[in-house]
Amino acid sequence: MARTLDFWLDYASTYSYLAAERIGALARAAGVTVRWRPFLLGPIFQAQGWNTSPFNLYPGKGRYMWRDMERQCERLGLPLKRPEPFPQNSILAARVALVGFAEGWGEDFSRAVYRAEFGEGRSISDTSVMADILGALKRDAARLLEQAQRAENKARLRGETEEAQRLGIFGAPSFVTADGELFWGNDRLEAALAWAQG
Amino acid sequence: MARTLDFWLDYASTYSYLAAERIGALARAAGVTVRWRPFLLGPIFQAQGWNTSPFNLYPGKGRYMWRDMERQCERLGLPLKRPEPFPQNSILAARVALVGFAEGWGEDFSRAVYRAEFGEGRSISDTSVMADILGALKRDAARLLEQAQRAENKARLRGETEEAQRLGIFGAPSFVTADGELFWGNDRLEAALAWAQG
Repeated sequence: MARTLDFWLDYASTYSYLAAERIGALARAAGVTVRWRPFLLGPIFQAQGWNTSPFNLYPGKGRYMWRDMERQCERLGLPLKRPEPFPQNSILAARVALVGFAEGWGEDFSRAVYRAEFGEGRSISDTSVMADILGALKRDAARLLEQAQRAENKARLRGETEEAQRLGIFGAPSFVTADGELFWGNDRLEAALAWAQG
Repeated sequence: MARTLDFWLDYASTYSYLAAERIGALARAAGVTVRWRPFLLGPIFQAQGWNTSPFNLYPGKGRYMWRDMERQCERLGLPLKRPEPFPQNSILAARVALVGFAEGWGEDFSRAVYRAEFGEGRSISDTSVMADILGALKRDAARLLEQAQRAENKARLRGETEEAQRLGIFGAPSFVTADGELFWGNDRLEAALAWAQG
């Protein structure tokens, strides 16, 4: 079996932040090649009748999630600051990310987005925040923001989200092995890597 | 801090089965005393507008849960057979369990219920199944089933469920430390025990 793993992430997802921070070192140690697959959870949630995050629809679950994130971030030494509103609209970040992964700087960009959003509480739907993040990565923000919003790039993101849906993905982060095994949640990252090792 | 942990379980909950199988050895190793607290998730789900398990309301999530249970049971060496219907009505088992914990045989009873339900796919709402389980534990089924259905025992279970709700519990299994820290899910059992150790 190929030692590869697809990492499906949504930039609005708190636990995707934890997975994005953890997956690099763990995958290297496991000898597994990871393909980062940005997508949008929004259309998948809408298809099951949700118009916002389940953490907002079910306040008890939401309160718990933020407390759990506090504990996990403390354990991992990661900053945590809740952005307003939550969830953030992640479509711009996902579009820029697709360009970034095509050009080879997608992972650094992804981690920078999560740090801005959940480490500093910034609004990732804001074009100026996106420009800041790209500038800090020494990227040409004006060109990239234009490229991200082109019709063919928008269509690619729609295609990725449809692919996630076909794979049975219903939350983020999710991990899918070469033989189609689905693992959901940051808590299943180690199990997904072990499966990918065969 | 007291080295104690409350283990909130619902007999209809698949992941409570895994936690019930795992918690004994882990708690002994951690030097933590566990108090088993049977309750009913149904009224908590109903309060947020759900009339059945979220694993039925959201079929993608449900398919994933059963696959995840297969993987986890295989890893833990536990049998798995899906009961029909799922979820089972767990009210009779919870009422008997309260009697069992008062008399000191609650843990053995709980594990036997989960083995019957999720290891053999039996209907735990069926009085004859409950009588079989009690008989195998050398308990007087007729007396216990009568005692379980007494008004004061029913009221006690309602009280436990209300207490779970007050604690912010929204799923099972859940773990609550002496200082009120809530952990949700079999995946958080180790973290809950570590917290209880102080």
